Amino acid sequence: MSGASLVTQMRTEIGEQPAALRTTLDALLPRTGEIAAVAAGTRQVLFIARGTSDNAAVYGSYLLQVYAGRLATLASPSVATTYHSQADLSGILAVALSQSGRTEEIVETLAWASRCGAKTVAVTNSAGSPLASTADLALVTAAGAERAVPATKTFSSQLAALAVLGIGLGANVDAAELRQVPDEIERMLADPGDIEGAAAALAGAVGMVVSGRGLAYATALEIALKLKEACYLHAMGLSYADLLHGPIAVVDARTPAIIVAADSGPALDGAIQLARRVTGANAMALAIGGGPGLARECDRSLPGPRLPEWLAPIGLIVPGQLLTESLARRLNLNPDTPRGLTKVTQTG
Amino acid sequence: MSGASLVTQMRTEIGEQPAALRTTLDALLPRTGEIAAVAAGTRQVLFIARGTSDNAAVYGSYLLQVYAGRLATLASPSVATTYHSQADLSGILAVALSQSGRTEEIVETLAWASRCGAKTVAVTNSAGSPLASTADLALVTAAGAERAVPATKTFSSQLAALAVLGIGLGANVDAAELRQVPDEIERMLADPGDIEGAAAALAGAVGMVVSGRGLAYATALEIALKLKEACYLHAMGLSYADLLHGPIAVVDARTPAIIVAADSGPALDGAIQLARRVTGANAMALAIGGGPGLARECDRSLPGPRLPEWLAPIGLIVPGQLLTESLARRLNLNPDTPRGLTKVTQTG
Repeated sequence: MSGASLVTQMRTEIGEQPAALRTTLDALLPRTGEIAAVAAGTRQVLFIARGTSDNAAVYGSYLLQVYAGRLATLASPSVATTYHSQADLSGILAVALSQSGRTEEIVETLAWASRCGAKTVAVTNSAGSPLASTADLALVTAAGAERAVPATKTFSSQLAALAVLGIGLGANVDAAELRQVPDEIERMLADPGDIEGAAAALAGAVGMVVSGRGLAYATALEIALKLKEACYLHAMGLSYADLLHGPIAVVDARTPAIIVAADSGPALDGAIQLARRVTGANAMALAIGGGPGLARECDRSLPGPRLPEWLAPIGLIVPGQLLTESLARRLNLNPDTPRGLTKVTQTG
Repeated sequence: MSGASLVTQMRTEIGEQPAALRTTLDALLPRTGEIAAVAAGTRQVLFIARGTSDNAAVYGSYLLQVYAGRLATLASPSVATTYHSQADLSGILAVALSQSGRTEEIVETLAWASRCGAKTVAVTNSAGSPLASTADLALVTAAGAERAVPATKTFSSQLAALAVLGIGLGANVDAAELRQVPDEIERMLADPGDIEGAAAALAGAVGMVVSGRGLAYATALEIALKLKEACYLHAMGLSYADLLHGPIAVVDARTPAIIVAADSGPALDGAIQLARRVTGANAMALAIGGGPGLARECDRSLPGPRLPEWLAPIGLIVPGQLLTESLARRLNLNPDTPRGLTKVTQTG
C-alpha cells in the first residue's frame, strides 16, 4: 500500500454500512406486499448465488426455514449453465443474489429457473442490471458504489434485503426490530473491542477455522471468505456440526478457531461447547459475539450486536470485517485489491 | 503407527471396494420399483446428511438434477434439531444418508421431514439401524464393517446406492453401465499411477485446494475431507465457480491445487481452464482424472476411471483415497485413527 492511503477503501466502506442499511431499509420495507404477491402460489424458495452472495443466501435459507416455515435451499448453478438441464420448478420462488447484477452464470440460472416454471426475485445493488430485468421482482439494495474488492456493505445490505424478503413471506418476527440494525452497527463501529489485539493474535496462523451454527453460520462463512480473499489465509468456514464430522482433526495449537454466535437463541449452547472442544485441543479460540457465556470459554473475544438472533448475523459481520482489514494491513497486504480477483466475477 | 501394521486398515478397506460395490449393486438394483413407488407424488428431493455422507449427497443432487429433471438440494439439519421448526414438505422425497444409521441428528431430521409431510428414504450401511427403521424405504449398502475412521468403501457404496436411486427416479442413463463400476475400480487399484510421487509432491504443503465441477465436485469435496481428517491439512474443497469467486486468492506457490474431473462431459473444459489459472499463479496442479487434456495442463496427474460422466465420481475417489493414505504415512500419521474423531459422530 502507498503511504498516502492511510485509510483503506475497505475500511471506509465498512464505516458506510449504517447509512447503506438505512437507505436500503427505506427502499425495501415498503415493498413487502409486492414480495407476498410474487410469492403467491409458491411453497419453497431456491437461492441462486456465488461467493459473498452465496453466504448471504445461507442467511436467507435459515431465516425462511426457521421463521417462515418454508423449505429454502441453495441451487447448483452449473445444473443450468454447464448441463442445461430441465427441471420442474413450479411452486418454487427462485431468489438470485448478485451485487453487480452482472455475474453471467447467476443471470443465466435465474432465467433458467423462470423457464422451468419458478417465480423469480433478484436481490442486487444495481437497478439497471441484467439480473434486475430478468426477475419478476427486483429488490434493489442501496449500498452505493463499492470499490474495494472484498464486499462489505453490499453483504450487510443483502442480509437486510433478505430480512425484508422474510417479512414479505410472513416470517414470525417483529419487523420493527429491523430498524434497530443501522443504529446498532453504528454503535459497534464506535466501540468495536480490541480488533488490533485479535489481529495480532491471528497474525502467525496459516490456517484457521471459522465456525457458526444456524443463522450465524452464514456470517461465519462470510468471515472465512474475507480472510481468504484479503489475507490469503486458509480459513475454513464450517458449521459446528460439519466441523465435528471430520475437520475438527485439523484444529491444533497452530490452527486457531473463530466462533461466531448471537448473544441469545438456541444455537448459542453449541457454540459454547465448541469453544471448549477447541481450547481442549490447545488451539486459540476467538469469540465474535455469543455474549459473556461464549467469551468466558474463549481466549479472546470481540463483542457482537445487541440484536435478536434473527438479525444478529447482520451485526456479527462487522467485527469480522474489521478484523480482516486490520489483519491484512498487519500482513502488509492491501485489502482493497487482492491478487487474482476482480469485482465482477465471471465463471463460464 | 506400530511397525507391525505395515498395511493400514484404511488401505485394506480401499481395496475392498470392488467387492463392496458388487454386493451393494446386487442388493439394490432389484429395488428400483420400490424407489419409484415411494417417490410417487413427489417432485423434489431433499438430502439430509453430514460429513462424508453430505459429500455423497452432493453427488446425488447433481445426478438427479442433471439426469432426472428433479430439483434436489441439501437440508440444514439444525432447522429441525436446533430450531424445531415446522415446514410444509409435502411433495418432497427426503433422502437421509448415514453410514452407521445412528447419527442422532440425521435420524431426528429424517423423522422431522416425515412429520412435515415428506416421503422418506434412508441410505445406510446398517439394516437394523434407527435410520433404516425411521424411513419409508431403506436402501442398505453392503460395504461390510468399516473400521478405519476415514470412510472409504462406505462412501463409494453410498454413491452406488444414489446411482440406483437415480435409476428408480427415472434418470435418463444406461443402467447397465453401473455394473461396470466394480471392475473398473479393480483395474484402477491394480494400476493407480504414481501415487507415491504425488504424495511426495504434496508433503510440504500446509494448505491446498481441491476443486471439481458438476458431478465431480462431490468427489473433490470428499478428497478434501479425507486430507483434513487423515493428514490434518487445510484442504479446501471448492467448486470451480466458488473458487474463482474469492478463494483463488489463496492459491500460490505454497498452495497446490488438486483438480478432479471425469474424462468426458461438459464440466471438463472448465477443469482445464482452472488448471491453467492455477499453474499461472505458480501453484502446483495435480490432476485426478480429466483424461489427457487435463493431464497436459497439470504438473502431475493420476488417471481416473474409464466410466461415463454420471458414474465417474465413484471411480475418481479411488486415487484420492490412495493419495490420502500414502500422504498420511509419509507424514508419520496413522490414517486409521485421526485425532479428535470417532466413528459415529454425534452433534447435539
